[in-house]
Formats: sequence, C-alpha cells, structure tokens
Amino acid sequence: MSNNEVIEKFFYPSSVAVVGASREPSKVGYQLLHNLIAKYRGKVYPINPKVDEILGIKAYPNVNSVPGTIDLAVISVPAPAVPTVVEECGLKGVKSVIIISAGFKELGTSEGIEFEKRIVSTAKRFGIRVIGPNCMGVYVPKVGLNTTFLNPERMDFPNHGNIAFISQSGAFGIAVLDWAAMRGIGISKFVSLGNKCDVDESDLLNYLVSDDDTQVITMYVEGVEKGREFAKSLRSVTTVKPVVILKAGRSEEGVRAIASHTGSLAGADVVYDVVFRQFGAIRAMGMDELFDIALSLSLQPPAKGMNVGILTVGGGSGVMATDAAVSLGLKVPKLSDTTVSKLRKVLLPIASPYNPVDVTGSARDEHLLQAVEILTRSGEVDIIIWIPYFMAPGISKELAKNFITLIKSINNELDTPIPIVGAATGGRHTAKLSTIIENEGIPMYPSVERAAKAAWALCKYGQWLRDNGTFEEYISKHMRSKATN
Amino acid sequence: MSNNEVIEKFFYPSSVAVVGASREPSKVGYQLLHNLIAKYRGKVYPINPKVDEILGIKAYPNVNSVPGTIDLAVISVPAPAVPTVVEECGLKGVKSVIIISAGFKELGTSEGIEFEKRIVSTAKRFGIRVIGPNCMGVYVPKVGLNTTFLNPERMDFPNHGNIAFISQSGAFGIAVLDWAAMRGIGISKFVSLGNKCDVDESDLLNYLVSDDDTQVITMYVEGVEKGREFAKSLRSVTTVKPVVILKAGRSEEGVRAIASHTGSLAGADVVYDVVFRQFGAIRAMGMDELFDIALSLSLQPPAKGMNVGILTVGGGSGVMATDAAVSLGLKVPKLSDTTVSKLRKVLLPIASPYNPVDVTGSARDEHLLQAVEILTRSGEVDIIIWIPYFMAPGISKELAKNFITLIKSINNELDTPIPIVGAATGGRHTAKLSTIIENEGIPMYPSVERAAKAAWALCKYGQWLRDNGTFEEYISKHMRSKATN
Repeated sequence: MSNNEVIEKFFYPSSVAVVGASREPSKVGYQLLHNLIAKYRGKVYPINPKVDEILGIKAYPNVNSVPGTIDLAVISVPAPAVPTVVEECGLKGVKSVIIISAGFKELGTSEGIEFEKRIVSTAKRFGIRVIGPNCMGVYVPKVGLNTTFLNPERMDFPNHGNIAFISQSGAFGIAVLDWAAMRGIGISKFVSLGNKCDVDESDLLNYLVSDDDTQVITMYVEGVEKGREFAKSLRSVTTVKPVVILKAGRSEEGVRAIASHTGSLAGADVVYDVVFRQFGAIRAMGMDELFDIALSLSLQPPAKGMNVGILTVGGGSGVMATDAAVSLGLKVPKLSDTTVSKLRKVLLPIASPYNPVDVTGSARDEHLLQAVEILTRSGEVDIIIWIPYFMAPGISKELAKNFITLIKSINNELDTPIPIVGAATGGRHTAKLSTIIENEGIPMYPSVERAAKAAWALCKYGQWLRDNGTFEEYISKHMRSKATN
Repeated sequence: MSNNEVIEKFFYPSSVAVVGASREPSKVGYQLLHNLIAKYRGKVYPINPKVDEILGIKAYPNVNSVPGTIDLAVISVPAPAVPTVVEECGLKGVKSVIIISAGFKELGTSEGIEFEKRIVSTAKRFGIRVIGPNCMGVYVPKVGLNTTFLNPERMDFPNHGNIAFISQSGAFGIAVLDWAAMRGIGISKFVSLGNKCDVDESDLLNYLVSDDDTQVITMYVEGVEKGREFAKSLRSVTTVKPVVILKAGRSEEGVRAIASHTGSLAGADVVYDVVFRQFGAIRAMGMDELFDIALSLSLQPPAKGMNVGILTVGGGSGVMATDAAVSLGLKVPKLSDTTVSKLRKVLLPIASPYNPVDVTGSARDEHLLQAVEILTRSGEVDIIIWIPYFMAPGISKELAKNFITLIKSINNELDTPIPIVGAATGGRHTAKLSTIIENEGIPMYPSVERAAKAAWALCKYGQWLRDNGTFEEYISKHMRSKATN
C-alpha cells in the first residue's frame, strides 16, 4: 500500500477493532465504542479478554482472534500494555493504528518515553502507521467514524462539510468540533495528532491535498519536528488548496507553556512566520480567526486583487468596515465618477454613492440589489463586504434569496467571480437570516471586523495563487465544485 | 432645573408626547408609539391633528392642547415642520426633546442645515435640550422607555443592566441592542445621538458619572466637535467609572467615509488616541471588543497589577491564552517554588503546576477548585483567566456553582479581590454552563483571545485608577454594589 492508501484507512476503514473496549460506562473504552457504533456502519470488533459481548456486539479476547481483516485498530488500554498490542496488530496485518491512551512521552518520565520508543520501532517493523499516542483520534462525519471518547450529552459533533481540521491539542480539537456543530460549520476530517510518534502534519497535508471532500485545511500547531518535510508539504498543498494555521507559542511565555504541554520544540516564532509566508500558509491569530477565515475560503472564490467594495445599510458599520479593511492592508478605493453616477441614479437621495456605498436605513431591497450589481460589474472592486441590516423597515425577508440569486448569475457571466462576505450584527431575527444566506454560500459574520478579516484571507490567498500561476485553475475548480453542490 | 435634571427627563419622564404619532402601521409615528406604550407606564400623549385616538390612546392636535405637563417630546414629523413643533414645545414648557426625523444637516443641503439651525436657536431661547435630530432616541429598560421605531418582530430589546451605551450611529446602536438581548447583556441606558445639534457625549458623560444604574459607559463615536469639553468630561468620569470607546475613522479612508455618513469632523485619529490615553478612556477596536471589555468591567473588579494566572483544563488553550495575554502587554509570571509545590500536591501527576496551570482533561472539579484557591491566595497573580472544559469527563455540572461560591468567599477575605474572567470554547452544553456562571458574575468568553482582551481591560483600568489614587475607593464601591446585587 502507498502511504496515502494507509492514511486513507484512518478515515475510511471497512472494519475497526477497539482494543480496550469496556462495559463500564465510566471507562474511556466504553464511551469510545459507544460513540463509534452510533453512526459508523463498517464492522466493529470490541477487544476485551474478560467479556464476550459489549453494547450488544460480540467481543474478542485479542486482535488475533478476530475472524476478518482489521483496517483500523483504536487502542485505549493502559500505556504499559500498548506496545504489545501494537505488536499483535502487526502480526494480524493491521496497518493503521490510533493510540488514544496517554502515559507516554508527554509525561517526561523515562518509562513513558521508553513505551513510546517501543511503539515506534514495532510499528516500523510491521509497516504500521500510528496516530497518537495521547490523542482523540479521528472524526469523519461522512462515514460516521468517531474515535473520540467524549460523552455526547456534553458535546455535539458537526456535520459533514469541506473543512479539514488537524489539531495538536486534543481538548482544543474537541471543543472546536462542539463549537463547529453549534455554528453550523461542516468538517470533512478531524484528526487529533497527540504525541505525533509517527503520523504528523506533513503526512496529513500530503493526503488532504488530493482529498476531494476537503476544500480548506485548518491546523492547530504547537511545534513541528520535521521542519523541512513540513515546508515541502506546505509548498505542494497551498497552490492547490488553502492551509490556515493557528500556531501557538507566539510569545516566549507561550513557548514555555508548550514545553509543559506537548513538549514540542516550539522554536522561535519568527521561523514559523517566515515559513508560513514563504510557502503560502495563512496564519490565524486565534480560534475565531482560524474558522472565520476557513469559512470564507471554503465558500467563496479568492479575490483577484486587494480592492474592497463595501455596501452597507448602516453608515457607522461602513466606516468601521473601512477601518478594519485598511488596517489589514486592503484597499477601499474611491469609485470612478461613472460608477458613482450610476449608483446615484438608482439609490435614494440620502444614500452615499461612494465607497463605502451606504444605501441607508431607509433603503429597500432593490437598492441593495442594484448597488451590488453596479459594484460587481464596475471592475473597480475585487471583493465585496456587504452589511445588510435585517431589522431595517425596508429590507424584506426575500432579500437573502434574491441577493444570492443575483450574485450567482452575475458571477457566472464575469471572467473572474467577485467574492462576497457579509456582516450582520444583531439578534435572533438577524441570526436566522444570516444562516439562510450562509447556507447558500455567502459567509456571514457577526461583526464587520470579522468579515474584514475573512475578506483579507480571500485577497491574500488570491495573491498567493496569482504569484504561483494557479489562480485560474483554482477558480475554475472552485466554481465547478460550487456548481455541483 | 440643573443641566442634569433636564437630562434626567430624557430617561425618566413622567409623561411623553409623541409628535407625529400615526395610525398607519407603515409609518415611523405608528411604530414609535407602539414600541413606547409596550412597556412604558408614564402618561403618553399622541399628537396628531387629524385623528382623535391612536392605538386606543386619546390623541391631541398639538402639544399645547395636552392637559398636563409634558416631560419629554419625541418628534417624528417631516423635517420642515420640526422647527415649529420645537417652538410649540417651548411655549408648552417642555424642556427635553428628542427629534427622530431626518432631513437636516446630514443631507448637506442648505435647507437641511437651515432647519437644524432654527431648531438650535429656538431650543436655546426656551432652555430646551435636544437629542438628535436624525436619531433613534433613547431606550431605558428599567422604566420601559423606548423611542425607537424598529419593528419588534425583527429585533429584540435587552433587559436592564449596568452598561450604558451611547451611539453616534443609530443603525449600529439598534443592531447592538438586538445583539445584547441575544447575548444576555443588560443595558442601563441607550442613547442614539444622531446629528448632535445639542446634547452630545459630554452632556451624557456628565450625567452618567453619578447614575447609580450605570457601572460602565460604552460609546460609538465618529467625531467629537467640542474636544475640550469632551476631554474634561472624560477626565472627571474615568476615575469614577470606566468609559470604553469604539472610535471609528482610524484610517484615512474611514475618515472619508465618516464625512459621507455623519459629516463629523473626525480629525486625525492620533489625536483621539492621545486624548483617550491621557484621560483614561479604554479604546476598543471593534464591536466584539467594545462589549467584551464592557462586560468584564461591569462584572469584575479591576486588577491591582498586570500579572495573569492562567488555569486551564486544556493545555493548548493555556498556551493560546498565554500568547494572547503577553501580546497585549500583560505578564504571565512563573510561579514561586512554594506555589508550584502546593499545586503539585493537590493536582494529578500529569498536571502542569506552572503558569499556565494545566489541570488536564483528566481533572475533576476539586482540582480546579483547589488550584484556583492556591492561585488567588498566592499573592503572585493579580487576575485569573480560567479555562474550564465543560465536556471533560471529570468536570461536573456542579463546578460552576462551587467555583463561584469559592471565589466569592476568598475574595471577601482578601484585601484586594482577584478578578476572574473565563473562556469556554464549545457548543450548546458549554454555552449553557457559561451562561450560568456569567449570571453569577464571572464573564465567560467563547475564545481565550477574547477573554485575554477582557482581562487586559481590567488590568489597564486598575492601573488608571491606581495612577489617579481612586483604586481603593472604586474597589470598595464595586464590592458593595456586587454584595447588594
């Protein structure tokens, strides 16, 4: 099997053995099996030498006694027993192993380090790839694969979507899944890397670059050990699909904290910054940014330039959006006289036909629709931030639908589509309409500052693609994939 | 009447005349009356010469024909008719007038400017104070006073709380109210300033400084005309209660946009920045920040220093919180050997007893409780960011209650209380528990970056108070007000 074929088994196994499955609801090995069988439809083999059956499924004393082949083994026995289990997996012909158990290198004890070394050498001997140890494993909603052991009464899992998320922190990874479920963000594949004794970021980047289900790759990283490989992987991926990285350890104190957490060699932050820049990874400075950016890249095409058109129902929000865009290095250009007079003709007399285009709170749907058409066709802006106020009296519930239909039809005619992101501050009514719009492909943010950051990412990624000569290719692939959705 | 007594009538009138009240649901004058009578229990006089009754309330042809006194007149007749109405208000003895109508200086037309000038001179002649024109007026949930004309089917209004919000943008102000209602943030008084032909930020600062219902003053500002007065007001307020300002027009392009929006002389941003710094206003760079900061200042005491203790269930979040705190200029100090060994004694062997203190995902409630007690009593940190993971198996639903009880009892014993802010990333279960904790007075944010910013504001404001010698006074007042809540 090629490397990618083995990695594929982590995401699409036909059969999964749960080594350390338990009947005891307080145990990890119970919850893990419970979560796995909730949605996964492949074969599941609980492994436990003391019982015949767990949660209604026949149990086996060890992997060797399982009748069929095992594509993936998920191990949650105590650390000292893990090396032997990995050996048994090797003898059984299992090629993909996830080790949930903790008690290895992360403890910093000689015993823990020794156990992990034995796992690595055994895995190498048998050609096994290992995710973990000390991790949450994987979550692949498309096939219901879930190797996490969190109680679903305390968290939700997101639906299938086109964003992959790789996390060096298990707890943070889980929190993000739970948050994504609430936010309505879909995930293609989630991987908790744990101690990274074998499978690391580069392995996953090399796999995900050709994963059709993944449009954007997001990562939480504390430290990368094999820097050269990582840079090489980044270089080959970022010209094909965007990689957004939240790299912790920006400060000396953060690096010290990493040493106590994953023990990664975080190294100087400036090195990461240079590598990200040089190889086209987009750096996020926090969780909100990571997913705000990922969402815009997953829904909208990148921009062909840095000129932002701002279209707003509220003047103040237009000003704040301008500030935010400019502070990120984007341009909010003055519009040509021709465009201004076109806008003036269709807007209310009190509207402001400049950039930001402020249709005002007295505007009706048609003003926003006509203005966005003039802006997108003007050739003077490369991306639009629109700021509807759904509580404004003249804005109807139909605006969302009509706006999206219009944008799609205009973008189908243009040589290069104009991406759009939105900001709508408000409460329940606004949230509801924002969700409708987002489900149709225009990302909506609760503040103009967050929308501006999302727009920035579309501009920045567009520039990267143009610098690397893959802009056209990306756009046509992106538009095709949107058309078939 | 003193200036503040007149201003008081804007918030606590015994009677309100609605000039331009209408029977036509599509009209501003209908919705305005509708919103006002929904909760307000004072006398309401609809003014409309064409009808006898609106929404079941007797209408009068003009203010003069109203039998009783009128504390507040809210005007929504067309702009050309407004100067005359103001004159009639003067003759009737009305001292507080809100002009909702647009069509004045903001149009930039000579006619609009002239109307506004006439309003100002008439008001001066009669000693009337005017809010607006071109504004949303006021919202005072404590007495149900609501002069906005938005359809409540499209937005919600927040409950009474201790944050005042003054907005130069009406639409943004409304959006914030709607958002605050959803977020569960209470508002003491909302004022939409509009064109500021008379009442401005300084008038409101001078009033709110002694308003017992207001703990924190927040503002959205595009431009301040009377700079000296504003600086003077700021100076006298910020040593008594915090003022958090979102000032738009940070960029040249933003200043240009302001010129088209409110026409304010935004001036060089650096001037504002210096004034804010010199007179102790806390500057927010966006909407999220404005209210994240206001919330922490409204719930927690300011910090007596810049040393942050981080207490986390997830290692990654601890690292990210450290990065965020340090990037804001806060310190995340190493703990003394004594404190480290105290922590080591009570925590799990795999826990990290440094700063961040990482109790790990295997922790139980007692580990967080014991750790926070050791941290708060150590004297080594001035503020704590705690990061519970409510989905962790060992964390019970009781943690919230027990944590709060413990913090309160420790802070009652300490000379200076240690403020606490929290970050909990997650979905529905986490949001529910976060709300419980926030309702008990510990602000909870959805990401560590936002919590760090909120902590920063408590440190920064504490420093301002110490520099001005009012720290002790503020703390004792704050603690008294919390004790009586």
